[in-house]
Amino acid sequence: MRALVNGREDGRIDPMDRGLHYGDGLFETIAVLDGRARFRDWHLERLAEGAARLAIPLPEPGALRAEIDAACAAGQGIVKLIVTRGAGERGYRPPRRPEPTRVVIGLPWPELPPTAWTRGVRVGWCRTRLGRNPLLAGIKHLNRLEQVLARAEWDDDGTAEAIMMDDRDHAIGGTQTNLFAWIADRWITPVVDQCGVAGIMRRAFLAWAAERGAPVIQRALPAAELAGATSMLLTNAVIGAWPVNELAGRAMAPDPRVAEFNAWVRRQ
Amino acid sequence: MRALVNGREDGRIDPMDRGLHYGDGLFETIAVLDGRARFRDWHLERLAEGAARLAIPLPEPGALRAEIDAACAAGQGIVKLIVTRGAGERGYRPPRRPEPTRVVIGLPWPELPPTAWTRGVRVGWCRTRLGRNPLLAGIKHLNRLEQVLARAEWDDDGTAEAIMMDDRDHAIGGTQTNLFAWIADRWITPVVDQCGVAGIMRRAFLAWAAERGAPVIQRALPAAELAGATSMLLTNAVIGAWPVNELAGRAMAPDPRVAEFNAWVRRQ
Repeated sequence: MRALVNGREDGRIDPMDRGLHYGDGLFETIAVLDGRARFRDWHLERLAEGAARLAIPLPEPGALRAEIDAACAAGQGIVKLIVTRGAGERGYRPPRRPEPTRVVIGLPWPELPPTAWTRGVRVGWCRTRLGRNPLLAGIKHLNRLEQVLARAEWDDDGTAEAIMMDDRDHAIGGTQTNLFAWIADRWITPVVDQCGVAGIMRRAFLAWAAERGAPVIQRALPAAELAGATSMLLTNAVIGAWPVNELAGRAMAPDPRVAEFNAWVRRQ
Repeated sequence: MRALVNGREDGRIDPMDRGLHYGDGLFETIAVLDGRARFRDWHLERLAEGAARLAIPLPEPGALRAEIDAACAAGQGIVKLIVTRGAGERGYRPPRRPEPTRVVIGLPWPELPPTAWTRGVRVGWCRTRLGRNPLLAGIKHLNRLEQVLARAEWDDDGTAEAIMMDDRDHAIGGTQTNLFAWIADRWITPVVDQCGVAGIMRRAFLAWAAERGAPVIQRALPAAELAGATSMLLTNAVIGAWPVNELAGRAMAPDPRVAEFNAWVRRQ
């Protein structure tokens, strides 16, 4: 692991950093393949949208791009980028002139089961629900206790992911993935305007589907409707897409179109 | 400012700390008066409850108490205590054997308007709503973006605080305070089982009221009902209690019982 704090290898995180105190910041998890940060500019776009929402002044994008690219030297791995509102006085009130903190961390590529892309993965349901807050929905902010509690619900490596609902019994996504379900001859993916994250690979799937004229709809997705889906897949920036072969004990055929999508992702 | 990270003045916050990455931790803000941490053991009790809820193993309480007491040397000030799940690998999944991080920060006593305790304070309403999540309600965790966004809504020093609602139009509390309202001859304070924080000074007010047999009820409090309250006060660990003299343009007489409560707090 190699971490740059505000561009410095010996940089320290201030104990008064608002990222630590309040989760007052944003992050991106970027896949690095062949020495290149995949969908780098989409990640930076989402970061900019989150920064605008939270009124955090972003570091100059050129500097961010350069630090991300420098972290790609290992060839394959993950770059985790965190931007916080920086250090401040005590109290929730944002500083008048915030000096954001940026942390760029280079991490090894994770060990993931190779069969996940081909045979698919087993998926369950989370008991932990997502609270709804339109102001925070969609962006990748640092308030992630719901996901932490949800991910702590299971410990067997045979379950790859579990689906979280909001308090209205709508399926939103996995703890670290977005979902697409094939229902009545079209792809459905939950809207993320009340909770959930607008994932970069979700955007990629929407782009891929649009490119080939495949029907895809973003809308509220009741959990009961998802439970009856014909097929289903999960996306995130690292895995691309995994087909689902079992949802809460119900077998599903891994959708062959997932392989087509992953092949398209590899060409990006 | 003096900060101890895991007991060391030269301690560093690991860039992989889950407190920074996910807000995966808890905090306490403790008033120090006459060299003593006020309601220290209640703060440690709430911390322990939060740690149990999040399954974060707490540092040994004796060590925490000793570090808090050492930070009280300045006589008057604030001790901010943060406990996180510590550093981990990337991903929401909590480490099997977490090594929590503790940060103990000694801060100066804040400048607060002296008339706030006597003449009362002006209070408004927040547009930012609180999302509901029973798993996170009541405890003082590090996911505080809702409070940050709410506190960013106003910048005039004449407004001391603003009241946040949940998505059901229930009043929950100020951005950094709990509230008590005198309505139909009794104190009402919002329940904090869906959102909000069970403040230490809220507990103190409940204890004070119980001690003198004053009627006080914890229940859902519709915002419209609060708007018609006879009087109102705000509590937190630093201020004790402030009477409210104006709620969103409507004048309220500062409740004289607030001074009695503050005198009781000074004796604790």
